[in-house]
Amino acid sequence: MEAGMTLVYLVSFFAVVIAMAFAVYLHLWVKKQPVENATIIKVSDLIKAGANTFMRKEYKILAAFSGVVAAILFILLPQPIWKGGSIMNNVYMVVAYAAGTILSAIAGKMGIIVATSSNGRCAEAAQKGIAPSFLVGFRGGAVMGLAVVGFSLFGVAAVLLAFGNTTISLGFSFGASSLALFAKAGGGIFTKTADVAADLTGKVELGIPEDDPRNPAVIADNVGDNVGDVAGMGADLFDSNVAAMTSALVIASSLGATGLANIAMVFMYAALGLISSIVGIATARIPQGSTPTKALNSSTYVTSGVFVVLTALATLIFKGFSWRIWGASTVGLLVGVIIGLATDYFTDDSKPIVKKVAHASKSGSAFTILSGVSYGFISALPAMIGIGISALIAYKLCQPIGDGYAMFGIAMAAVGMLSIVGTIISNDAYGPIVDNARGLAEMGGLGEDVIAIADELDSAGNTVKAVTKGFSIGAAGLTVISLLGTYMSEANAALVEAGKALISGFDLLDPIVFFGMLVGAAIPAVFSAMLILGVDKNAQRMVEEIHRQFREIKGLREGKASADYGKCIDIATAGALRELIPAGLVAILATVAVGFIGGPLAIGGFLMGNIVSGLLLSLFMSNAGGLWDNSKKYVESGHEGGKGSEAHKAAVVGDTVGDPFKDTAGPSINTQITVVSLVASLTSALFVAFSIFK
Amino acid sequence: MEAGMTLVYLVSFFAVVIAMAFAVYLHLWVKKQPVENATIIKVSDLIKAGANTFMRKEYKILAAFSGVVAAILFILLPQPIWKGGSIMNNVYMVVAYAAGTILSAIAGKMGIIVATSSNGRCAEAAQKGIAPSFLVGFRGGAVMGLAVVGFSLFGVAAVLLAFGNTTISLGFSFGASSLALFAKAGGGIFTKTADVAADLTGKVELGIPEDDPRNPAVIADNVGDNVGDVAGMGADLFDSNVAAMTSALVIASSLGATGLANIAMVFMYAALGLISSIVGIATARIPQGSTPTKALNSSTYVTSGVFVVLTALATLIFKGFSWRIWGASTVGLLVGVIIGLATDYFTDDSKPIVKKVAHASKSGSAFTILSGVSYGFISALPAMIGIGISALIAYKLCQPIGDGYAMFGIAMAAVGMLSIVGTIISNDAYGPIVDNARGLAEMGGLGEDVIAIADELDSAGNTVKAVTKGFSIGAAGLTVISLLGTYMSEANAALVEAGKALISGFDLLDPIVFFGMLVGAAIPAVFSAMLILGVDKNAQRMVEEIHRQFREIKGLREGKASADYGKCIDIATAGALRELIPAGLVAILATVAVGFIGGPLAIGGFLMGNIVSGLLLSLFMSNAGGLWDNSKKYVESGHEGGKGSEAHKAAVVGDTVGDPFKDTAGPSINTQITVVSLVASLTSALFVAFSIFK
Repeated sequence: MEAGMTLVYLVSFFAVVIAMAFAVYLHLWVKKQPVENATIIKVSDLIKAGANTFMRKEYKILAAFSGVVAAILFILLPQPIWKGGSIMNNVYMVVAYAAGTILSAIAGKMGIIVATSSNGRCAEAAQKGIAPSFLVGFRGGAVMGLAVVGFSLFGVAAVLLAFGNTTISLGFSFGASSLALFAKAGGGIFTKTADVAADLTGKVELGIPEDDPRNPAVIADNVGDNVGDVAGMGADLFDSNVAAMTSALVIASSLGATGLANIAMVFMYAALGLISSIVGIATARIPQGSTPTKALNSSTYVTSGVFVVLTALATLIFKGFSWRIWGASTVGLLVGVIIGLATDYFTDDSKPIVKKVAHASKSGSAFTILSGVSYGFISALPAMIGIGISALIAYKLCQPIGDGYAMFGIAMAAVGMLSIVGTIISNDAYGPIVDNARGLAEMGGLGEDVIAIADELDSAGNTVKAVTKGFSIGAAGLTVISLLGTYMSEANAALVEAGKALISGFDLLDPIVFFGMLVGAAIPAVFSAMLILGVDKNAQRMVEEIHRQFREIKGLREGKASADYGKCIDIATAGALRELIPAGLVAILATVAVGFIGGPLAIGGFLMGNIVSGLLLSLFMSNAGGLWDNSKKYVESGHEGGKGSEAHKAAVVGDTVGDPFKDTAGPSINTQITVVSLVASLTSALFVAFSIFK
Repeated sequence: MEAGMTLVYLVSFFAVVIAMAFAVYLHLWVKKQPVENATIIKVSDLIKAGANTFMRKEYKILAAFSGVVAAILFILLPQPIWKGGSIMNNVYMVVAYAAGTILSAIAGKMGIIVATSSNGRCAEAAQKGIAPSFLVGFRGGAVMGLAVVGFSLFGVAAVLLAFGNTTISLGFSFGASSLALFAKAGGGIFTKTADVAADLTGKVELGIPEDDPRNPAVIADNVGDNVGDVAGMGADLFDSNVAAMTSALVIASSLGATGLANIAMVFMYAALGLISSIVGIATARIPQGSTPTKALNSSTYVTSGVFVVLTALATLIFKGFSWRIWGASTVGLLVGVIIGLATDYFTDDSKPIVKKVAHASKSGSAFTILSGVSYGFISALPAMIGIGISALIAYKLCQPIGDGYAMFGIAMAAVGMLSIVGTIISNDAYGPIVDNARGLAEMGGLGEDVIAIADELDSAGNTVKAVTKGFSIGAAGLTVISLLGTYMSEANAALVEAGKALISGFDLLDPIVFFGMLVGAAIPAVFSAMLILGVDKNAQRMVEEIHRQFREIKGLREGKASADYGKCIDIATAGALRELIPAGLVAILATVAVGFIGGPLAIGGFLMGNIVSGLLLSLFMSNAGGLWDNSKKYVESGHEGGKGSEAHKAAVVGDTVGDPFKDTAGPSINTQITVVSLVASLTSALFVAFSIFK
């Protein structure tokens, strides 16, 4: 290995070690914080046990699923074994795939462990004031952030170092995507199943408060926050981060002679991003007179600033690092921030849109829905423009470097946007921790003042969520363009081998491409629909179980007997995974079917249609959901008639519709896009060998 | 002119004359039917007067708008006048544009005249039985169908004959699109404004029935059915039909030496389609023991069969007519039928989906919305696949003929799908006529039996609407691909003139194309959102007016004084046009902005993104709306608790959300796509001359 590359790997592993050490320190720090209230300890243990139940089942099913996928990979990829190439590459592919699932799973598990032990401590720390309570919540989330980014960088570097082949790296990325599909979409179905069932039976039928322990679904509901928003979100961003790095690596390695410097740059940027996140996380706290929202946002800005400076220094120092690529990465980061701010405009309740939807609710729930759908549609525009413009600028900046660099520039813009993902995840995971803490403070009877502090922390979590969501969708948008570039590299490699003409691009006017686009564009819609219907079906199963418990457990209604929380968790778990699999299969089988009908060109169109409509729908659903959620909160805080008014009833309908939009379908679309992109890249050789048309 | 072409023009004009004569005959036949009931005559006159008010204002604003557009066209197109080419071409362009708006306007006006004089006669004919009543409704609608197709064929032929230049034909098509934008989107806002305001004040606040004459919005509501569903739908299909023919002509004329035979084929197919529609219309009636649904569907099948046979005969007889192109056109027609059947599956209340949504309504309106959105998303898939596959087959069939024929094949598939548009419009316009007739039968006190017959006719109208809607969306899908081809021809002509490199295609991996695609994909979402919000705002204005009337007109509540219906019609009219213009401008300005940023390649991406997301959203919104409408009717017919139950309340919310989806936004997206495609084609020379990137 070249000395430069050795250095880069050393820097990468060094960053990973620092991050892990810091994560361990934070974890120990959290564990040192006191938790004494008996109710809080009890409920928090129930939540932890429930989350573990889900994770265990999920990982068991995932293991079976991965076994099947691994067998297919072994037989077919990177080359069918009957073709008589080196069988070792197929073994490597399987190993890389397994590593991708396992590392992501461990990161998710670590996040859950810390999150479920932070929530009670965060609640009790609120007795000492907002600043200490904030620190517990934020540092609990940061463990997840550091674990995800550390493991993803470690995995990508280790796989490339071990196998020296970027096609095998795609296997690692595919492993991460498989896990993300289960964790994000499965966790999303779980959390909304429990949420909807708990609301329907508790608030509507029985007239008991949201977090009443008599409701058998109440623990499942809290578990859902953790498995959906902590583990699911972590797996999603693990997946995006790995996909961005891997596609940058695949493109870099196709750049020929100078590819090594470019590969070095990918790792260096990722390592510096991790170090910047550590700085951002370490410095986050609430100074005198500040607010949690400011503290969270400032950690994002500190990380971004440090990253821009560090990468500029690296470009200055290292031979072969281009300023143009630095520019592309900086543009990516900047556009991420801009998208976040635009999202904020549409979902923040101090801005006009949320107020308009709350006002429309006065005319009835149909108007809550119509105005939310409309503003949700409009909210997609700035992000779509932002992603398009950043791709355009990155491309134009890097094109002069040489052939193929334009696409590399786009990949590096995605790496830039994702550079601060450690901090982003910390901010995101902070949300469910303080949300749980709020519930625990109420159940543990810590008093009004403490609840008020927990409320403030919780509301800050909701506000910054908009900005972090902007990043993840924007990054997914840029990543998938580079995944399309990756797909073309892979397809061309297969075409060369088959002695066929190379693909030079995907022409929109080619009806084969057009056919693929139309089908690809429909898939995110079908996928989301299946997840939403899955939540619906699963919630009905849980409602039946709750009815059964109230019928059969004597004294439950009076609070004299304890509910069987485990049963509800089991139903949510089993149902989530059962409903998820058909949706995932539809997306994967559609990719394969389009490939067999139209060959590699149709797949190119399919991926692009999938990306374009996927981005549109995920922005629409995430933002509309956030908008409805905050409109409901705005009404509840006393506007437009306040709690119990007609406007409130209508706003609740909006929120219920928005729940699976923003927590199940919307964010799962990113994963769906990555999964089909990787399936396409991995199977491109098969479609080259056989397709009906062309 | 070649003898063959002369013959083709003669056949075309002959078909037009026959169609017009037949339309006049049908109109006179309808006028001969008796209408005697005084209430029916009075109300029907109010509806007619209201529709005329709207049409007059609409045409006045359109005239002003067209004046501005005509001035811009004159200065810039086909070539800026300062460039010193022949100024006469610019004059021709203006003339063609004006002709497009005027012919479409006349066709719409004719449709409204006959529809508003058929409704009362249809109601009274129901006293004699279902068969005579059906004939009045159907023949009233058929006048519109014949006028639209006759005028569109006449206009396209006359413009080409007069100016001999297919670029000028684009001006005619743009005129038709401008009118369609006003008629379809404006009419759509009008009809839903009145519907929503009438329901909100009447049913909800005052507790009076839907068609109670004390409600000042009741006439506006009936007027809405006519201006939205008759005139609007007619203008929409006039536009699609003209666009399909024009783009086939532009592509045919670029095919060089044999272009003449291809141009002849376009006209011949259109003329034979018109003749087939006449046969289908003339033979439609309800035989003993049959139902109106069967009669309507059989007129569609008769027309299709006659068209396939006649075009086969023409291919046999005429030298230069290719069987491959006949195949493409037949595939287009067939796929149209299949899309219609798929739509029917998702929206027909005898099929499972409607029942599922009705059942979900039992859990509350949030579940009505969630399940409707989900199935609406899924319903887009078959149509997307169908459009993609038909483009693929048409392309593959025609590619062997020679260079450029593949795209011509797709254009002819669209012409094939639209060949039976005369019958389609007749079926569609039948709907609002029998809908009005049902209301008139009730107001005129014609008795239970007559109302039952009117109900059966009305329900048949709703059922076949699904099939006809499938055709219009499918045809729009195919037409716009050929419009994209047209755009490339136009852009290349401009590039040749500017001495720049030609465009050979639009590569998805080119970030300029990608940028355009992302923005283009967001536009249908923003456009629909603005229309929906427009309905909302406008309905609020009308609600205020209704409140004012009840406050200020003494005796209105007791039915002793008459409401000021005209004021409500004025509000709906003014508001509809006011809300429409910004939405239209956003679409047009976005096209121009993308062109100035990214040049002709970005526009190619923009159009494709627009088409793909536009098709997805229009299928989603149209089908979800139809689904909610029929779910409500299904509940009202006594299922899931029937009228007044919780499920019914929830189903009403779904229907209210669905109304602007299916009658305003969904069907207007087609027009939006056509408008931006034509704007792009017409302005391509400007972007070639100037753009920031590339």
